[in-house]
Amino acid sequence: MAAKASGVVLGKPVTFVTGNAKKLEEVRAILGHSVPFQSVKLDLPELQGEPEDISKEKARLAALRVDGPVLVEDTCLCFNALKGLPGPYIKWFLQKIGHEGLNNLLMAYEDKSAYALCAFSFALGPDSEPITFLGKTEGKIVPPRGPNDFGWDPIFQPKGYNLTYAEMPKEEKNKISHRSKALDLVKSHFAESGYIFRS
Amino acid sequence: MAAKASGVVLGKPVTFVTGNAKKLEEVRAILGHSVPFQSVKLDLPELQGEPEDISKEKARLAALRVDGPVLVEDTCLCFNALKGLPGPYIKWFLQKIGHEGLNNLLMAYEDKSAYALCAFSFALGPDSEPITFLGKTEGKIVPPRGPNDFGWDPIFQPKGYNLTYAEMPKEEKNKISHRSKALDLVKSHFAESGYIFRS
Repeated sequence: MAAKASGVVLGKPVTFVTGNAKKLEEVRAILGHSVPFQSVKLDLPELQGEPEDISKEKARLAALRVDGPVLVEDTCLCFNALKGLPGPYIKWFLQKIGHEGLNNLLMAYEDKSAYALCAFSFALGPDSEPITFLGKTEGKIVPPRGPNDFGWDPIFQPKGYNLTYAEMPKEEKNKISHRSKALDLVKSHFAESGYIFRS
Repeated sequence: MAAKASGVVLGKPVTFVTGNAKKLEEVRAILGHSVPFQSVKLDLPELQGEPEDISKEKARLAALRVDGPVLVEDTCLCFNALKGLPGPYIKWFLQKIGHEGLNNLLMAYEDKSAYALCAFSFALGPDSEPITFLGKTEGKIVPPRGPNDFGWDPIFQPKGYNLTYAEMPKEEKNKISHRSKALDLVKSHFAESGYIFRS
């Protein structure tokens, strides 16, 4: 399926696969009404590998399960001193060693720079090759500051700001975040594609 | 399929899935002729998650592809200060940050203790639930010493030894290694199960 297929009729709204209420809230705030979607929590296997490959494979599996158009999201937090790691495995590191442990991983390095990477993959259905949209925001890893209600937001300070993601007002974060950059590409794709939703 | 099924006839030798010549060499040295097996390199997706779950899922996928009995292997290197991480993701950490980078991850901690964990999973075929055999060897992470021809062996010094895995004679390593402990369980299982190989 070409990235700019036009006039494709979709029999269902897009299913956004997530079990994370905070991610859903951000996606709703950023996408607005530009893409008709519903959300569902699916227990999908998560692969090891490069971020884009992980995302595409998740979309393939989700499209098989949903039997319709799906949108999936993956987030990486990549430390430059660690050549991009923990990257796609950040979830496990956050869960097991927390904000302090993540800071400690960089104890040996002057370079605390990092980037947040978001990959959305969209598949029209189980027989379509997924399309991936990547958003990246540069910054650095700092001791935690701000509310502790969304993952590693308290330890990521985007470049050019004195605030961590957690300290920033939501609207401001949503202007510059890795997730919003990837979603802007999703929005543009939908605007250009001319998909027709018919349920 | 019960773990102690007896007299089960297998129409093929066991397929050991690996693309790593060094692992194959160790498995041959330890299993000897106790289990008839052939080896094959399959490009299987590798999951994120807990070591035992990752191993079982790999065996399920391998049994589907091979359509016969399979044995798969996974190795983790788990740092206690990092609550078991990098664990199943050690491959990527080794590839990207090397031996020095792995030592650096522990710079913030006095505790350099670690354990090597090996999981073998065996499935009789695509319709059987895999059985998992775990072997664990305690030790610590040290600056690299010894030949650099097998993964992280130069930086793992098993408890009670002054040598790293890489510095130990193969026969000695194979007596105490995480892999040999797991393979001993595999051997016992085959000895007790009474599988009959008929090709």
